[in-house]
Amino acid sequence: MSSTWKNRLTLSLFGESHGTAVGVTLDGIPAGEVIDLEALQAFLDRRAPGLFPGSTPRKESDVPQFLSGIKDGKTTGTPITAILPNLNAHSADYDDFANIPRPGHADFTGHVKYGGHQDRRGGGHFSGRLTAPLCVAGGICLQLLARRGVAIGSHITELGGVADPPFDEMVAILNRTIQKQDSVGGIIECIAIGLPAGLGDPIFDGMENRIAGLVFGIPSVKGIEFGAGFGGAAMLGSEHNDAFYFDGDTVQTRTNHHGGILGGITTGMPLVFRTAIKPTPTLALSQESVNLRTGESAMIAVDGRHDTCITPRAMPCIEAAAAIAIYDAML
Amino acid sequence: MSSTWKNRLTLSLFGESHGTAVGVTLDGIPAGEVIDLEALQAFLDRRAPGLFPGSTPRKESDVPQFLSGIKDGKTTGTPITAILPNLNAHSADYDDFANIPRPGHADFTGHVKYGGHQDRRGGGHFSGRLTAPLCVAGGICLQLLARRGVAIGSHITELGGVADPPFDEMVAILNRTIQKQDSVGGIIECIAIGLPAGLGDPIFDGMENRIAGLVFGIPSVKGIEFGAGFGGAAMLGSEHNDAFYFDGDTVQTRTNHHGGILGGITTGMPLVFRTAIKPTPTLALSQESVNLRTGESAMIAVDGRHDTCITPRAMPCIEAAAAIAIYDAML
Amino acid sequence: MSSTWKNRLTLSLFGESHGTAVGVTLDGIPAGEVIDLEALQAFLDRRAPGLFPGSTPRKESDVPQFLSGIKDGKTTGTPITAILPNLNAHSADYDDFANIPRPGHADFTGHVKYGGHQDRRGGGHFSGRLTAPLCVAGGICLQLLARRGVAIGSHITELGGVADPPFDEMVAILNRTIQKQDSVGGIIECIAIGLPAGLGDPIFDGMENRIAGLVFGIPSVKGIEFGAGFGGAAMLGSEHNDAFYFDGDTVQTRTNHHGGILGGITTGMPLVFRTAIKPTPTLALSQESVNLRTGESAMIAVDGRHDTCITPRAMPCIEAAAAIAIYDAML
Amino acid sequence: MSSTWKNRLTLSLFGESHGTAVGVTLDGIPAGEVIDLEALQAFLDRRAPGLFPGSTPRKESDVPQFLSGIKDGKTTGTPITAILPNLNAHSADYDDFANIPRPGHADFTGHVKYGGHQDRRGGGHFSGRLTAPLCVAGGICLQLLARRGVAIGSHITELGGVADPPFDEMVAILNRTIQKQDSVGGIIECIAIGLPAGLGDPIFDGMENRIAGLVFGIPSVKGIEFGAGFGGAAMLGSEHNDAFYFDGDTVQTRTNHHGGILGGITTGMPLVFRTAIKPTPTLALSQESVNLRTGESAMIAVDGRHDTCITPRAMPCIEAAAAIAIYDAML
Repeated sequence: MSSTWKNRLTLSLFGESHGTAVGVTLDGIPAGEVIDLEALQAFLDRRAPGLFPGSTPRKESDVPQFLSGIKDGKTTGTPITAILPNLNAHSADYDDFANIPRPGHADFTGHVKYGGHQDRRGGGHFSGRLTAPLCVAGGICLQLLARRGVAIGSHITELGGVADPPFDEMVAILNRTIQKQDSVGGIIECIAIGLPAGLGDPIFDGMENRIAGLVFGIPSVKGIEFGAGFGGAAMLGSEHNDAFYFDGDTVQTRTNHHGGILGGITTGMPLVFRTAIKPTPTLALSQESVNLRTGESAMIAVDGRHDTCITPRAMPCIEAAAAIAIYDAML
Repeated sequence: MSSTWKNRLTLSLFGESHGTAVGVTLDGIPAGEVIDLEALQAFLDRRAPGLFPGSTPRKESDVPQFLSGIKDGKTTGTPITAILPNLNAHSADYDDFANIPRPGHADFTGHVKYGGHQDRRGGGHFSGRLTAPLCVAGGICLQLLARRGVAIGSHITELGGVADPPFDEMVAILNRTIQKQDSVGGIIECIAIGLPAGLGDPIFDGMENRIAGLVFGIPSVKGIEFGAGFGGAAMLGSEHNDAFYFDGDTVQTRTNHHGGILGGITTGMPLVFRTAIKPTPTLALSQESVNLRTGESAMIAVDGRHDTCITPRAMPCIEAAAAIAIYDAML
Repeated sequence: MSSTWKNRLTLSLFGESHGTAVGVTLDGIPAGEVIDLEALQAFLDRRAPGLFPGSTPRKESDVPQFLSGIKDGKTTGTPITAILPNLNAHSADYDDFANIPRPGHADFTGHVKYGGHQDRRGGGHFSGRLTAPLCVAGGICLQLLARRGVAIGSHITELGGVADPPFDEMVAILNRTIQKQDSVGGIIECIAIGLPAGLGDPIFDGMENRIAGLVFGIPSVKGIEFGAGFGGAAMLGSEHNDAFYFDGDTVQTRTNHHGGILGGITTGMPLVFRTAIKPTPTLALSQESVNLRTGESAMIAVDGRHDTCITPRAMPCIEAAAAIAIYDAML
Repeated sequence: MSSTWKNRLTLSLFGESHGTAVGVTLDGIPAGEVIDLEALQAFLDRRAPGLFPGSTPRKESDVPQFLSGIKDGKTTGTPITAILPNLNAHSADYDDFANIPRPGHADFTGHVKYGGHQDRRGGGHFSGRLTAPLCVAGGICLQLLARRGVAIGSHITELGGVADPPFDEMVAILNRTIQKQDSVGGIIECIAIGLPAGLGDPIFDGMENRIAGLVFGIPSVKGIEFGAGFGGAAMLGSEHNDAFYFDGDTVQTRTNHHGGILGGITTGMPLVFRTAIKPTPTLALSQESVNLRTGESAMIAVDGRHDTCITPRAMPCIEAAAAIAIYDAML
């Protein structure tokens, strides 16, 4: 289970943050599709650290090596596997607190689940590093979707508690947070346009279930809402309902509180969802924790490399998850 | 796909609102478990209309008939199938607007997906009626969980835009809404206590993914958040992180912003999530829509039986979904 | 797992031989397909006892009641559920040997797996009775395949050790076996014609894997071979290889040792496979067994109704399994 | 689908014969299991060419490189990924007949399925090379099974049409076949001992279905039979039924015509199955085929490296498939 998602497409993620490599196998992509590796790299670079203040100084290789499934720039129809070697893993950063789980992180639950055998360096298999291969798979799907008239984008609608911050204010928020040695979270809105009506299936295989199933695979995501979402729960039915009308031969809605999905199935209106990203749990500030070996309380402060805020880097990951779910529904 | 959810348990829902029956097959429940049919019925009765003002006057049979899998009051280990016959289907209520999709409902998307062949009477397979068999499956899981020390409950944290309304105020909100011939939504908080640490798997099979995958199978759910959720995105890391401490031999956290889940895996703290329920789309008020046959605009007002607010009736459905996801993770 | 098969279609069987009913949920059939219920019944009647000597005198209801998914004679696109009530269950036949497992039957393994809680009357969920709902699902797929130019048939190539017996000899074999109070097995060859080339997928999702996965769901099947099968293992490569040639624009093969499948994928030649059916294990002859309660050895002789040979009745079951696998691969 | 097998374990194969690498991701192995890499290599070496006359002179790297899931010689509990680089791919061997499908091979069906975009060098994803990563996964499962008291072995019961040949005769058969530039097939019997009773599930998830689903993933397998199999179809019920008796507290059977499986579930007796391997289709002899580009008939003779008989090399592959299916059923 766990690291494999299987519908029409099969997506299998593997690797640990400080192991040899992380990677992905993506099965079910049709044969003969051109993959633009330069465009894919540009997409992956949006996930890489360095574009915003306060991102980890860890130097990562986000250049995928394709082992199978692509030949002469085109898909072969059989499984596509890409690996991303881990170049710059400073395991020593983590040695000091091998038995002290970071609050808010999966160190403790990984310890319970795997009995201490997990590779906990850098979060191991729970690391945000695993979103790199997710973005490889999603980036491929984005190219195939674009060819079919579907575009997906995202933007930050809240950062550090500030709604719709302009770029300069985002930079200011991040710099203030760096100085406090603290971290902030945010909310990302993702929109897909150009979708045909009729994608998705009722009940457990609706577009909401599918997208949520992938998006909660991104570390730090703690909530998702579609269309008017939680705000819509406070509206009257007469306000929330989106009136249908004909635009030529096409049925459209005058408003889009439904976020492009009714009964789990796309209406053809823009598919809109928002995702809550919690503040990065790893902090240089000293935090209360426990020593799992000695059974005593302990303090932990992590001086190593970590992000002040992963929200900006999470944008391509959210888009990737949406692209996989939507392209899969079109197969 | 669609109506089958498959992990360790397999859950398959079937039926249409105004067809012969709705039902469920639940496979994977261990043999020899006593099923208390009276307690199950009491649970199902919480979903039945009539407990709150403004619920549909439709008389439904929420008494399941078990066809297989239970013998002499105990599970046999093989698939449990229960059906709930549809006694009181007033199809005539829906005849007038056979080609006019109700705004906010799945009439339009069902039409697109099934080319007009779907059984659209009463919403067909998209009807809230399908939550009755979901509650049968969930009610069974709740009994098995109780036997293993896990309890699940829920309450309404917002109704018609009012936060934490006492019961009398809920009744007042509903009565006001009935008079306006309108509808309201709400937010339900669900809590599971007594969970062991270590349930769930990383990435795509975490508890958040599993619960979301089931909860979005309930009609009208448009959002889900775990722990501090969307509110948590506005907190600092130092505020949001939950400090670990030892309570005897057990690791606990001083706060529970993580909602009992870290890295997709339970910590042993209460598992907490909230679900946004949109206002009921079917209204007696006249709404703008289209006639799919003539291609012209049309107005629609539904005089038939429908709920002013499904939030109260959704509570056992949410608990059922949570119970299935959690019990499955314990297998 | 167990009783659910899931690919593009989802097929879920439920029920026990002497319970209330057996049934099936089939999800994934497109909307708007006409289902000819008379033709379906004629297909189901081939599975019913009575066409050959030595079939069980048990009177079964093989008339399915459709609960969902079919409206006005057409599929709605949502799950099709059919149940077949168990009319004539003589549980008393089985009371005498509640703790004595029949040799060759699943009584013993069911007891181990379900700790004695299984419904063992008439074999419970392991009964051949479960092939009735399988045939309902398969019979629907056969109609859809016929509409797409695919026909599936089967014949007995061995009965009681006699190869290619004419009908009169089959009757004689069965009558001789009845007199000896014994039972016989047989081999069924199944052929599908009209298939397009290109169905199936490499490695674990080839047509051989898919068909085998369904065919071994039929009780008493102990072997399957495709094309030349076990006999082909004794041929030279130069004999076994089927030469390609053009018949107009179509690539065909001069022989068909490959049975219509290469690399798991159809070639467009007839798909041919044979299935070994073991002799019916339930016998009126006295057989050595054990008493699971007392821990002592015991003899068992079953006077109740049972088949001398299930091979003739297994033919439509094999065709049903093939039809499901093939139609699924065409979706 | 296709290259992923998913039950409790998830097994995902990737790669093409002449691409960068082949590999496997195996998810679901418990944490903390010691993996003996030397013993694993010894198992993989049984699949490597060179142990029997007439095996391909292609020099393959069958030394897996583990990218994830193993740390300090123990499993971490998260996905295990191993790759085997393709060192010695002589693509030129295949250039001459790029448009002429080899009879008996998947060249033609791969062409139809993937529209000519597949990597057909050396059979691409359909190559026997993909059994190397299958054996990595199976070899790991064999070690875990051994630790739990289960042993799996196999032997050749027919080679080139000769039943139970001693080793010297096998060598003679192969040498004769090399001289004729032809190829032969064979039958492999595989036996698993030490299994507990009660593994497997009824209907579609029985041990026969599971093992067949994996074994048909091995190229050239055209048949499988359990216990007495096809021969058993010619026996009387009174002969075929295996009498139960108590050996101390354990129920055993006096004979084992059922091959250790009744109703899809293990009895605790040795699990026995036989697999038919067709003769290697690639031949140096000239064979009739077609040119898919010109639409004309064509002859093909392959001078490159290929096996006279893959049956000996298939033994560890069959054991690997059985080990995966059995270990999965024990989880």
